[in-house]
This record gives sequence, structure tokens and C-alpha cells, in this order.
Amino acid sequence: MNNFTFYSPTYFVFGKNTENQAGHYVKRFGGSKVLIHFGGGSVVRSGLLDRVKASLEKENIKYVELGGVQPNPRSGLVYKGIDLCKQEGVDFILAVGGGSAIDSAKAIAAGVKYDGDFWDFYEGKVIEDALPVGTVLTIAAAGSEGSGDSVITKEEGMLKRGASGEAIRPKFSILNPELTQTLPAYQTAAGATDIMAHVLERYFTNTQEVEVTDRLCEAILLTMVKEVPRVIADPNNYDARANIMWAGMVAHNNLVGVGREQDWASHNIEHELSALYDVAHGAGLAVIFPAWMTYVYKHDVNRFAQIAVRVWGCQMNFANPEVTALEGIERFKQFLTSIGMPINFKELGAKEEDIPVMVEKLGLGTEGTLGSFLPLKSKDVEQIYRLAL
Amino acid sequence: MNNFTFYSPTYFVFGKNTENQAGHYVKRFGGSKVLIHFGGGSVVRSGLLDRVKASLEKENIKYVELGGVQPNPRSGLVYKGIDLCKQEGVDFILAVGGGSAIDSAKAIAAGVKYDGDFWDFYEGKVIEDALPVGTVLTIAAAGSEGSGDSVITKEEGMLKRGASGEAIRPKFSILNPELTQTLPAYQTAAGATDIMAHVLERYFTNTQEVEVTDRLCEAILLTMVKEVPRVIADPNNYDARANIMWAGMVAHNNLVGVGREQDWASHNIEHELSALYDVAHGAGLAVIFPAWMTYVYKHDVNRFAQIAVRVWGCQMNFANPEVTALEGIERFKQFLTSIGMPINFKELGAKEEDIPVMVEKLGLGTEGTLGSFLPLKSKDVEQIYRLAL
Repeated sequence: MNNFTFYSPTYFVFGKNTENQAGHYVKRFGGSKVLIHFGGGSVVRSGLLDRVKASLEKENIKYVELGGVQPNPRSGLVYKGIDLCKQEGVDFILAVGGGSAIDSAKAIAAGVKYDGDFWDFYEGKVIEDALPVGTVLTIAAAGSEGSGDSVITKEEGMLKRGASGEAIRPKFSILNPELTQTLPAYQTAAGATDIMAHVLERYFTNTQEVEVTDRLCEAILLTMVKEVPRVIADPNNYDARANIMWAGMVAHNNLVGVGREQDWASHNIEHELSALYDVAHGAGLAVIFPAWMTYVYKHDVNRFAQIAVRVWGCQMNFANPEVTALEGIERFKQFLTSIGMPINFKELGAKEEDIPVMVEKLGLGTEGTLGSFLPLKSKDVEQIYRLAL
Repeated sequence: MNNFTFYSPTYFVFGKNTENQAGHYVKRFGGSKVLIHFGGGSVVRSGLLDRVKASLEKENIKYVELGGVQPNPRSGLVYKGIDLCKQEGVDFILAVGGGSAIDSAKAIAAGVKYDGDFWDFYEGKVIEDALPVGTVLTIAAAGSEGSGDSVITKEEGMLKRGASGEAIRPKFSILNPELTQTLPAYQTAAGATDIMAHVLERYFTNTQEVEVTDRLCEAILLTMVKEVPRVIADPNNYDARANIMWAGMVAHNNLVGVGREQDWASHNIEHELSALYDVAHGAGLAVIFPAWMTYVYKHDVNRFAQIAVRVWGCQMNFANPEVTALEGIERFKQFLTSIGMPINFKELGAKEEDIPVMVEKLGLGTEGTLGSFLPLKSKDVEQIYRLAL
């Protein structure tokens, strides 16, 4: 196991009706003038925004609003949010929505405290300071409610990039599984795929002797394998929603990834898909991850056999572990199909002729590599896109 | 799943040589005058105390020392520590040792900020304020490095009681698995048993539909089943030590216990054993837990069958799940024996004639109950002690 630090100081408030405590927690974490940041009409139509506002008003907390966050959130709205916060003297940002609203809120929070262009953070500068952020989560997916990460898309060239820093970890996150019950099945499944992908990026590692994090990763995956089909069959299954929602946080606050090298090639390869076609990130991952697995599994057949046995319930083929490894990948694909996810370019609506553009935009050139399990060059990434056709 | 809150804001620093960063983290979390609190001679003899002092000196942090913490730490030293801190103007307490040193440090930290008798907190008052505490952990066991709990024994009557509060969660905890390599095998095994017991107290619940925490609990147990025999066989196996040490934190910062009713009867039943005979808490748990399981398993045979299959690798007896449930308990006992733990009064050195005294000291009277999985009255507790003979 490698040396590591782990710090997850977010206060999590989980369960039914908890959105009504938003005001209480904004106050507890020092907010007096809030920017409520959200996406489209669903948080308005459902009455969620009104309940959140009422809970702020109950605590005499002032607020301004900025809606309009899109999936794959854009830099344009971030600039607008930064200006609004400065102009209004906002001291706390409350994201109401999914990963997009939260990531956009984090970008604004960092931008307000920075003299330069906030995009610098998305080109590698570590975020050292930010306004405090709180969240009211409406979809189990990105894990942004418990992470120090944010992903933003720059309109100019549709560049999708990530930034990190302890300063943007939410002070509190309110997770009410009821709020996810009205999601379309496709979004639920895409979110679930994103959660599983966060675990898989950590699971495929060259670090040896990491049983505790292996087992914790498998625990999350086993939970998803049981619970996701249940919510697809019955969107109102609160308990299944609850198990998925907590799994989504644990999958990405890095508890299950400490002390081990992590990969993250698939996320980067996917980002080019969702940036180009504006598809759900989770749906893109459903297309890319099995292709990545098929391309790299020979690098560590035993690790692929392990996940096949422990998560997918395959029988170990002791005479030929490769058979088991491949069976695990096949079961993962079957699972994705069963919950309504696309598993190839065709099903996603992506085009073969765009592959060179996506490879180019990843910016690896001829020498750069992506991922750590098996470092990939541009030509490898191209092969993975082709395996996903 | 029940509503819950989860807050684990401790900064964890994990790995080789990390004790040399103690000064850095004391400074980061605001300490300028430290009480170094520790137990017996081993932290002195090993040179650990010198390394910690050197790291404080490097940051120009002043310190005073208070050693002498015993296993099952006593109230007398806590009073002494409180006086010393007030007298010396201490603003940060650094525990160097295991759960005993940390629990004693937490009690001192709470006592310094309280006008009354610190023992009030151990009779039910919630700890609202405390000096900041940091830890350098030397044994994987109590989980106190990541918890808001402390257990202290009052000399007068040898009363062993617990207190809780967010204020006593450590600001940082330094976990270097190398520091555990010199522990005698018996202490390693007792610590491991304590870790497993922390998970089991959470696992046996009446809350339905808690797959994610079930699976996370099982992940910790599976890790222990693999790694503990390896460190008993080879005390210098760093990676096995590391997996156990991180498992010990995750087992007790409550991540794996949120959203579900927890039991904790066995811990209380055991406390009377370790208070009376001054035996290692983990060894007492090895005696009590299988007896408790045998007494209560019929309350939920399927849950006992689940752990038997998922953790102990038993084949499910579909015609008669009770057979599987009992086989799981038997395998747990075999495991405890294999790592050198006592599993009955005789092996522990406890006496049948003391049972009435221990039952009496639990203070349940004729109507009080203990635990939530199957609430136990005094007569049930007596039966459990007798099952452990």
C-alpha cells in the first residue's frame, strides 16, 4: 500500500425531507448571503427550490439565484456567476441539483476568490481558496457532493477539463433519495454507471496488496448490481434509491481509492465523447469502459478474474483465468444493457469519423500517455474508440 | 434505510515515517503548546516519542508530557492531565499510543473546557467543547483515531463508561503501520478482534434494506479474515498491517454504520469483564461475541446465514438456513482460536462466581435493557455470560 492522506470533512445530511434543513446548515457553516445555483426547470417545477428558499428565509439568510446550468456545465455561466457573487457580496454558494450544478458552483466559488481567469484551475492550477459551497443533491451520479473535484466545459473548442482542491469540497451536502425518484430511467442508469465507473477507475491499479480498498470497491459495485435493476423496475423504491445515493458518495470521496495508484484513462477518453455529442457522461462511460477493459485486461488477467468472481459471480476457471476475466467484462456489458445504457458508438449516436478529432483533442501528441494501469498513447486511445464502435 | 448525518472531518495521514509530520499537523490545526499524552515505556524505548518531539521542535512548538496511561485508562490520570493543561496553558493534546492513550487524551481535552467534573460526560452528558486532539496511532484496534468516542474507567468501583461528542473527534490522526510491527501477537490479535467487533455491532440490526452498509461491513470483515492470520504468521508484513490499520479506522468512524440501528450490547457486556479482570478489551470481546451470537441468532436466522455465506465462505443450506447460521458462528470461533484469542471464561481467566457481580454492575435492574437487535434484560445477560463459560 502506498502512503496517502485522506480528508473528507463534508457534513452529510441524509434522508427524507432533509432539504428543509438547508438553511440550518448554511448558517452553521457561516453563510449569510447565498447564491442558489441550479439547472433547469425540474427543481422549480418539483417545488424543491421553493422548499430550499423557505428554509433559508426561516434562518433570515439572504439569497440571489442563478439557474440555467446545463449538463456538461459551461464556462460562460461560471463567469456570470462569479460576477454576480462579487456584485452581490455573496459569501456562500448553495448548489441545488446534480453534479453539473455542483461542479459549476465549485468553479464559481473558486473564481470569486481568484484574481485571474478561473479557467487557470482547469488547466492544472490547484484551487487554494474558495467561497464555501453546500449542496442539495438531486441525482446519484457524479459524487461531486463529497469530492474536491469539478469538471467544466469551455465553450470555445468544447474543452471538457477537471480541477481539484480541498477548498472546493462541500461544507455540507444534503442527500434526500426521494428527490431522485422522479428522474427518467435513462438518467438514473447513466448516474449509476458513473458511480460504478468511479469505483472501477480506482480498482484497476498496479499497486499490490490493497485488500481493504479492493474489498470496499467491490462492496460498492455489489450494491449497485443489486440495487440499480430494482430502481429501474420501480422508480419509487426509496430504499434502493437510498443505497445507491450513499454508494455514489462513498464511490468518489476517495475512501475506496486511498493508498493505490488510480487509472482515470476511461474518464478522460469519455470526456471527449460527451463534449462532442453532449451526451450524458454516464452513458459515454458505458460505451468506453468495456472497450477499455477489453483493450487492457491482459495487463493483469488475475485482477480481471478477481472482479469477475467477486462482483459478477463468475465461477473461477482455474485452468484458464483469462476465460473468467473475459466473462466478467461480458457480464458488465450485459448489466449495462439490462439497465438501458448504450454500450457502443452506434447506440450512443457517436460517429466513427469523429475518432481522429477526439484523439487529437485529448492532446497526447505522439509521446504523451493517459492512465496508469496501462499507460495509453494516442494510438491506443484510437483502438479503444474503435473497439467501442 | 433510516435518516442519518455523517461527519468525519479528521485529517488522516497514513504510511511509513508519517510520525515525523506530527509537528506539521499540530501547527496546521492551531496548536502552539502541546500536551503529549502516552502510555508506558514502549513508545519511549522504540524512539517514537523522541521522533515526535523532534518534529514538534522543528516547528517551534512547545510541549509538556504526561505518560502512564494504562490499558482501560483510568479517571485518575485524566484529572491529573486536566490540571496540568490548565496550569501550563496547553492548547492542543497529542496522543501517542493506542485507544487507551487517545481516549484518555479526549477525556482531558473535554475536561479542560468544562467547569464541572469531566466524569459527567461519562454519565451521559454530550461533549460540546474540547481542546483539539491529534493522534499518532501505535495499534490498530479501538478506532478512536477516527471516532468521536472515548471510554474511561473510574477507579472508584471500576466503572467503565463511554462518552461521545463531535468535539472530541481528532483533528488529525497519523497512522504508520510500521509502528504496529513490534506489538506482541496477542495484542495484535486482540486489536483485530476489537475491529471486527466494531463492525459486528453495526451489522446485526433490525433495519431492513441496508445493502450498501451491509456490503461495506462485510468488506472490512473479509479484509480482516485475510490479513490477520498473515500478521500473526509474520509480524513484519507491512502490507497486511497497513490493510488492517485502515480497516480499523473505517470500522469505527461510522461510515459502515450509518442509516441503521446498531446493537452494542456485546461491548457493554464485555466492559464488565475488562473492568473486573483488567484484560484486553479485544480478548474479552472474543469471549462475549460468539456467546451473544449463539444467544440471539434465532431472532434473524437469515442475517446470520448471510454473514456465514458472504464472510465465512459457508455454503448456504437452503433447506435449513439455521444450519448455515450456526456454521458461521462456529467458523468465527475457529478464526478467533486460530489467531490466539480466548473464546471462553476459562481461557480468559474469568470466573463463573463473578457473573452476578458483573450483571449487577451493568445496572439494568429488573426492567432495563441492553442492545437493540434483541433487547437484553439482566437475565439474558446472565445467560450470555454462562454461554461463555
